Amino acid sequence: MDSASVGVVTPQQFVCETGIDLACGQRLDQYTLVYETYGALNAAADNAVLICHALSGDHHAAGLRSADDSKPGWWDNAIGPGKAIDTNRWFVVCANNLGGCAGSTGPASTKPATGKPFGRDFPLVTVEDWVDSQAALAQHLGIGRWAAVVGGSLGGMQALDWAIRRPAQVQRVVIVAAAPRLSTQNIAFNEIARQAIRSDPDFHDGDYLAHNAIPRHGLKLARMLGHITYLSGDGMRNKFGRELREGKLSFNFDVEFQVESYLRYQGEAFVNRFDANTYLLMTKALDYFDPAARTGGDLAAALKPASARFFVAAFSSDWRFAPTRSREIVDALMANGQAVSYAEIESPHGHDAFLMPIEPYHQMLRDFLQTPAEARA
Amino acid sequence: MDSASVGVVTPQQFVCETGIDLACGQRLDQYTLVYETYGALNAAADNAVLICHALSGDHHAAGLRSADDSKPGWWDNAIGPGKAIDTNRWFVVCANNLGGCAGSTGPASTKPATGKPFGRDFPLVTVEDWVDSQAALAQHLGIGRWAAVVGGSLGGMQALDWAIRRPAQVQRVVIVAAAPRLSTQNIAFNEIARQAIRSDPDFHDGDYLAHNAIPRHGLKLARMLGHITYLSGDGMRNKFGRELREGKLSFNFDVEFQVESYLRYQGEAFVNRFDANTYLLMTKALDYFDPAARTGGDLAAALKPASARFFVAAFSSDWRFAPTRSREIVDALMANGQAVSYAEIESPHGHDAFLMPIEPYHQMLRDFLQTPAEARA
Repeated sequence: MDSASVGVVTPQQFVCETGIDLACGQRLDQYTLVYETYGALNAAADNAVLICHALSGDHHAAGLRSADDSKPGWWDNAIGPGKAIDTNRWFVVCANNLGGCAGSTGPASTKPATGKPFGRDFPLVTVEDWVDSQAALAQHLGIGRWAAVVGGSLGGMQALDWAIRRPAQVQRVVIVAAAPRLSTQNIAFNEIARQAIRSDPDFHDGDYLAHNAIPRHGLKLARMLGHITYLSGDGMRNKFGRELREGKLSFNFDVEFQVESYLRYQGEAFVNRFDANTYLLMTKALDYFDPAARTGGDLAAALKPASARFFVAAFSSDWRFAPTRSREIVDALMANGQAVSYAEIESPHGHDAFLMPIEPYHQMLRDFLQTPAEARA
Repeated sequence: MDSASVGVVTPQQFVCETGIDLACGQRLDQYTLVYETYGALNAAADNAVLICHALSGDHHAAGLRSADDSKPGWWDNAIGPGKAIDTNRWFVVCANNLGGCAGSTGPASTKPATGKPFGRDFPLVTVEDWVDSQAALAQHLGIGRWAAVVGGSLGGMQALDWAIRRPAQVQRVVIVAAAPRLSTQNIAFNEIARQAIRSDPDFHDGDYLAHNAIPRHGLKLARMLGHITYLSGDGMRNKFGRELREGKLSFNFDVEFQVESYLRYQGEAFVNRFDANTYLLMTKALDYFDPAARTGGDLAAALKPASARFFVAAFSSDWRFAPTRSREIVDALMANGQAVSYAEIESPHGHDAFLMPIEPYHQMLRDFLQTPAEARA
């Protein structure tokens, strides 16, 4: 892989003074999106690529926060000069979603009316709300039409919504490791994560910041559970097996198996960087997304308005959003005669594969971005 | 299905005065097993069938607790006059496992030395400890050799251990929806369940009874998580879909999808009947079971001492203990030239299928119990 980096990136802020009317019926009179850009917008403003992040992602998709930063952005292996999403060619934009906790207006932000954190008062936002706020950002940046909107997992749902509701504003859509809506099992996992957070006594009905508390245990559990669904069963076995940390059984409840150690570590680390209310809100946005609900359950009918070219990718061992789920999108597009390329990529890494530098996957992504923009004559 | 019932059953108690030396190195000087029996032991004492229960099961496998009891035992559809495990022919025994919470000595029992509940002082017990205590019960009942030892899930692990460590004492072994050891993913789910319980402030490091508390939230979460793994993805979809309880999105954190309602209900109900320390202990017994660890990871070598006939059954949609896991046992037995029948049964019900009255499954179980007792000449 090309190890070229976009280098040190300074996040920018877009303050939307016109606010947003949300799907839930509430309104935010003003909000801020924090975002990063990589590469340069060309004179025609037709080389812009929007990256939509997933549940725990943020605007920092590539590059470094500072010169001595050892951990690049979450999709640095795909975004940079010469990489699959080549910043020599594309002007790449990634914003922290509304309701996030990395700088955009969210539950931990100060509510103007009270001067205190929103907490439980922050409204539930939807995938459609995110897309609408991203559209406001596009306008702010002078981008009339994205050359591509790209997203994995929950990000793929945003890309799908762009294609459906704003067809004139997107030329290509990349949907990786996603589904047209959550399965019942997906919702069930989310519900347990939410219950873990909400039943933590430190949650204080969402107003934990006002109580100087954080629902650490609940958020940790939610993240641990998430991690199981991000990895494949085989991947977990290959990575951790049944290896014992001390080489023998302890007959107590300390960490024994390596996989326990991994999950606890991941859970702890997450609590230090993520907001519990944002986690709740993200899971609800996932649960709610269902574009076919507007067309009586008919996904093909829902996709009819789309005019973009589609690239849909899924990973063989992903059981959170299995290839069969991605193929629902592909089948609906094909039923409509719409332009779609589909790849089921062999990987033992489960859902996490969408973040990994898998060469055929990145090559297909690179090639797709170079396809002619117009899918229909 | 035959609806014949064994009728009202009175649990009995076996007090083992000789105690037990446990795998962890600790000793219980005395313990009690509560058990039920159905049918009659014949004069030759060669018609006894032991039923081993799974994680949340108990000794009440069949029949009713009282004449107006509306809920029969957990495997009533398989045990009774004329049923697959025919009580007209077999003398069926089922005991609550040591460490349980349905009457056998366990963490909620009074510790003789202190006069208070064991709580955190109750030792971790293993599948092997359970089998040893069941062997003491067999001796007490005058049963030198079981006609069959039958178990599903964690119960199947006990049946497997009977076959390996006490070959002279078991003629037939039935292992349903089980595995020769947990997968990494299985352990990971168990770890999250344990963390949910142990991080509940009401857990008090296991001594919650002494604090007049119960870690309700943690145990509820653990059970909710368990339920996801007991059902198949398709089964969940067929049962609950994405049905909304109120018919529309609420944009809050109340119960919205029917599957949320189901999981919360199941979690709540469980908290009222099960002990959190027992749940912890059961998950550890699951994690620890690995007979092949004694033979360098070679399951066939571990199974060599067995002389019983085996019937191994798995269910097509079970992803907790998938058919591939059951086949590991079958393959090892076949490599040894040991007598084994295997059935992979079509069912959409996931792991829960092992408790369901699936006709081909029960027919095979019935037929297997009638095979000649001696597997080897």
